[in-house]
Amino acid sequence: MQLQITGESTINVNDEETIYDALKRNGIYLVAPCGGKSTCGKCKVKILDGKADCKSYGRLQQRERLEGVVLSCQSTLKTPLSIEIPKQSRLVLGGKIAVSIFKDTTAYLKSYNVEIDPIVKRSFLQLPPPTISDNLSDLERLKRALSDNGLGQMRFSYELVTGISDTLREANWSITLSYTQHGDFSEALSLFLADECSRRYGLAIDIGTTTVVVYLVDLISGEIIDIGSTYNSQTRYGDDVITRIVFATEGGGLNDLRQAVTEDINTLVESLTDKHHINSCEIDAAVISGNTTMSQIFWGLNPGSIREEPYIPTVNYFPLWRGAVSGLKINPQSPVYTSPCVASYVGGDITTGILASKMHRNSEISLFMDIGTNAEVAIGNNEWIMTAACSAGPCFEGGGIKHGMRATAGAIESIKIDPATLEPIIEVIGGVPPMGICGSGMIDAITEMFKTGIINQKGLFNPKKSERIREGEEGLEYLIHSDAAASRDIVLTKVDIENLIRAKAAIFAGVSLLVNEVGLTLDVIDRVYVAGGFGNSLNVAKTVMLGMIPDLPEEKYTFLGNTSIIGAYLALMSDTLRVELEEICSKMTYVELSVVGGYMDEYMSAMFIPHTDMSKFPTVAAAMLGG
Amino acid sequence: MQLQITGESTINVNDEETIYDALKRNGIYLVAPCGGKSTCGKCKVKILDGKADCKSYGRLQQRERLEGVVLSCQSTLKTPLSIEIPKQSRLVLGGKIAVSIFKDTTAYLKSYNVEIDPIVKRSFLQLPPPTISDNLSDLERLKRALSDNGLGQMRFSYELVTGISDTLREANWSITLSYTQHGDFSEALSLFLADECSRRYGLAIDIGTTTVVVYLVDLISGEIIDIGSTYNSQTRYGDDVITRIVFATEGGGLNDLRQAVTEDINTLVESLTDKHHINSCEIDAAVISGNTTMSQIFWGLNPGSIREEPYIPTVNYFPLWRGAVSGLKINPQSPVYTSPCVASYVGGDITTGILASKMHRNSEISLFMDIGTNAEVAIGNNEWIMTAACSAGPCFEGGGIKHGMRATAGAIESIKIDPATLEPIIEVIGGVPPMGICGSGMIDAITEMFKTGIINQKGLFNPKKSERIREGEEGLEYLIHSDAAASRDIVLTKVDIENLIRAKAAIFAGVSLLVNEVGLTLDVIDRVYVAGGFGNSLNVAKTVMLGMIPDLPEEKYTFLGNTSIIGAYLALMSDTLRVELEEICSKMTYVELSVVGGYMDEYMSAMFIPHTDMSKFPTVAAAMLGG
Repeated sequence: MQLQITGESTINVNDEETIYDALKRNGIYLVAPCGGKSTCGKCKVKILDGKADCKSYGRLQQRERLEGVVLSCQSTLKTPLSIEIPKQSRLVLGGKIAVSIFKDTTAYLKSYNVEIDPIVKRSFLQLPPPTISDNLSDLERLKRALSDNGLGQMRFSYELVTGISDTLREANWSITLSYTQHGDFSEALSLFLADECSRRYGLAIDIGTTTVVVYLVDLISGEIIDIGSTYNSQTRYGDDVITRIVFATEGGGLNDLRQAVTEDINTLVESLTDKHHINSCEIDAAVISGNTTMSQIFWGLNPGSIREEPYIPTVNYFPLWRGAVSGLKINPQSPVYTSPCVASYVGGDITTGILASKMHRNSEISLFMDIGTNAEVAIGNNEWIMTAACSAGPCFEGGGIKHGMRATAGAIESIKIDPATLEPIIEVIGGVPPMGICGSGMIDAITEMFKTGIINQKGLFNPKKSERIREGEEGLEYLIHSDAAASRDIVLTKVDIENLIRAKAAIFAGVSLLVNEVGLTLDVIDRVYVAGGFGNSLNVAKTVMLGMIPDLPEEKYTFLGNTSIIGAYLALMSDTLRVELEEICSKMTYVELSVVGGYMDEYMSAMFIPHTDMSKFPTVAAAMLGG
Repeated sequence: MQLQITGESTINVNDEETIYDALKRNGIYLVAPCGGKSTCGKCKVKILDGKADCKSYGRLQQRERLEGVVLSCQSTLKTPLSIEIPKQSRLVLGGKIAVSIFKDTTAYLKSYNVEIDPIVKRSFLQLPPPTISDNLSDLERLKRALSDNGLGQMRFSYELVTGISDTLREANWSITLSYTQHGDFSEALSLFLADECSRRYGLAIDIGTTTVVVYLVDLISGEIIDIGSTYNSQTRYGDDVITRIVFATEGGGLNDLRQAVTEDINTLVESLTDKHHINSCEIDAAVISGNTTMSQIFWGLNPGSIREEPYIPTVNYFPLWRGAVSGLKINPQSPVYTSPCVASYVGGDITTGILASKMHRNSEISLFMDIGTNAEVAIGNNEWIMTAACSAGPCFEGGGIKHGMRATAGAIESIKIDPATLEPIIEVIGGVPPMGICGSGMIDAITEMFKTGIINQKGLFNPKKSERIREGEEGLEYLIHSDAAASRDIVLTKVDIENLIRAKAAIFAGVSLLVNEVGLTLDVIDRVYVAGGFGNSLNVAKTVMLGMIPDLPEEKYTFLGNTSIIGAYLALMSDTLRVELEEICSKMTYVELSVVGGYMDEYMSAMFIPHTDMSKFPTVAAAMLGG
């Protein structure tokens, strides 16, 4: 049946296909952090003409329903439809969460003083044609030429060898061989005619619990050609890694989870390659970076033992497997490298993050914090690194927050509240009308509300303080933005604030315990690297005031954005950095906070703004006294 | 439709299925060297009741047709049938061609002074269960234990890693790992519970152009549990390697050829494992030995360039690929080793043959001759080996000879002709009524006929000499055996004799040219090893008289039988011998007789019995003068 999209194309919808799936199939992506189970209520479309079958309206308001708004993930067509897609329902490829603070990533790669030496190498070989007296077989002839070029023992797959007889002769003995080296293993990948397949692309892939980011990279120049990002569809089976592990093991859903994220990546890759006229077989290599559970699930490995003491994953250092077994729609011979994991709750996203921070190259003591769906922290220098995980939850990525969203166009990323009028002044990413609020905006909102007395140290509203505090569907809420034209308000609710305080408390407790565990105090920290979706829009003073990060001078803080994807890119482009990444991993010592003792005390103390022990936040204490 | 076999079972025949195929499907194998294209006329069955549809009667005689005999490969059922299978139509599993002269092969393996150390090894490992403080991932825990056991770098396949989490826990951390080492590569194969899968079997497989032989071996003791052999069904696409290469390349039939021989092997393996109650996944390893074309086709490699100057195969030294890609019905993780080939016309059957002969271990100069569908020769010692191929054709294996058959039960293997009466005295393998004549019988027959004047030096009949010389369907023929009861005569025809003289001339010309090429003369040869289906039944004096082998003292000759299968067995059971095999191969220098010059002259001179130059056969000359 036909589905007409206002101002756009008309597409065909299959029987029983949801509007969400039909749009996705046609390259139109809607926001759906719940992965299509109606709970997030974000994949709205408005029906202008025709009738739809709606299984559920989820959180939609009565007013919206009367206007013809439906959840696209819950709706199938009864008749041909004409719909409108609201801006805030659209998923934006790219966006701030996907991008690092490094505008010129190739230059950043060069700053490591390493050669561009991607994981897949190519060697041009001009073989002497065989004669009666030089009658080596095709494979031995190729091996002799490789040996003459300093490439000794190489492993040849069955698939490669079946084609070499024809390729060598078609190429008139001038061929290009792609190969990879990993540890002691050197593997031949594909044989080409010397003048074909001169283009070479690679993928850096960050698999987050909530979001998936893909960099399409030119392997020759190191240039990032384009970026794509989307929600991790595994969310439909659970918001956090624990729920997904339970689903994988007790629900037998490992394959569903694997397929969900593989399809997410393939959808992004297809849209990027389509856009840039690249054939999927020209994608020669991929590097995956994700937390330990995401990495196991990506490869279809049973994650069951990750959530049971003593918390053991199947693999930390992944063998270099091929595109064909990964399920990715790339050259099946491509190596797919997986960033090494330290332990069940400190994964490959953190090892790549540390690689991207360069803290492992410096003698000064640095603190690394990655705030995503969970938060992981590491402390150390070029000699040692200790690391731990804190269960912070997904709220800084928009999860569990009523109008939460990722840091893409339309997100309120900064908020100031006028102390006199208590009116908010907002800044929105991309200069478009606001659609929601992202992590940095949430932190701003809470600290500004705290400073102006709208909420107290426990995060509770003072309802008399402002007319913007009102009774909403989930209790009290603060009206951040009202758009009469779009009939849409953006609020921060009591529940949102509780979630944010729990998350910041988990992070600060983790940092405190880890620093304590290594026998240091916060003041010896020379530098703090903050990674995560915040980009460089996080206001240090406000985040310190919230009590989420240590009360250290602002100049010690560096915001790095998504370091997982940057580290994946670095590992893709340089063998030296890949070795460095594995050295980082083997140097990292994991501290299991739940067995160290004292975690609950630290956590409960941090459930205040900024903290019950104000001596830990001297500048905030001074400001509060001053204010 | 039902097919009843006299004295046996009744089987169901599918629509359009030939009787031959239906019998094969039910484990009843008929002799069919032509592979079912009606030309060999050997898969006869006699219809006792019912009607069949016969596409072709091939070479069947009018008399046979009147008796109800049909070719099973050409016949389908019109009505339910009752048939009788004549003894000579039955294919005998095992048989002399499959067996070496070594009655105790395990003892022969021991005579090499090597340990039993099969290509697949097993290591029992007791891992310490993980704890919070010893929290290595499953794979790293396994690697640590391997390293503690002196097994360093090992490669882990994707398939293996996907299962280890469950296996380790199910096994309570006591596991057995099977692995293989080949050159610098060490590969993990499968992980078992320590107390399961204690039985381990391997296959030694000889893929001949005409026949396929399989040894089922106990990998622990080295014992040969059973032997199977059958015709290579590729014969249906051509009798010799050249015809098959043409079919593979010009006819696009590579896959048909590959499938034909793989099915032959799998049929043998299934019948052997059924008989001995072995599960196919207990077959842990296989070694393939075959000529270069057979080896390429087995792996599905394009053999096209083998027949075009400069005669280059795709691979001589095959990587160690897995059961899964081989198409064999064995444990998919099993390594399948392929005996290395020297050149397009000296293959892995010759390198294994030399390994089995031990000539590469001795300082004396030996001549090695393998007489199968083609003949290959090698000369050398523990320092050097030169080798060449002669196109002898398949007649010594029964091909192209009217009543030719392999050296199995019912074959006339020895013939004497009484000089006075000119009546033949025959010996038959297995003490059963004769069904045909095998290679050694043919050589006996010709030399006896020559000695008694029934044929002259050119191999032409003297029709007046004996009443046994008669006009047959293909010209003159000599009646070797007449069986009135079975209404079956066994003859040697003029065409048979021409074929045999051409074959022996090709072999002797090859030996002469090769010996000449290395700057030696025949008298410096200390030892001659003759391999092939002859077993130890070949009469040296008569074979010398035929002019097929050099005129050297009988004590210099050793008959080894099928050395290809013995060498495959040795390589299966010992890593040391596998390395030795590859050293043999790299030491062998191939001589392309067609470009050396003088081949045609040597060949034409050898088209006499024994030779036009009698000085090359002094003992024969003396005997003829004496006679």
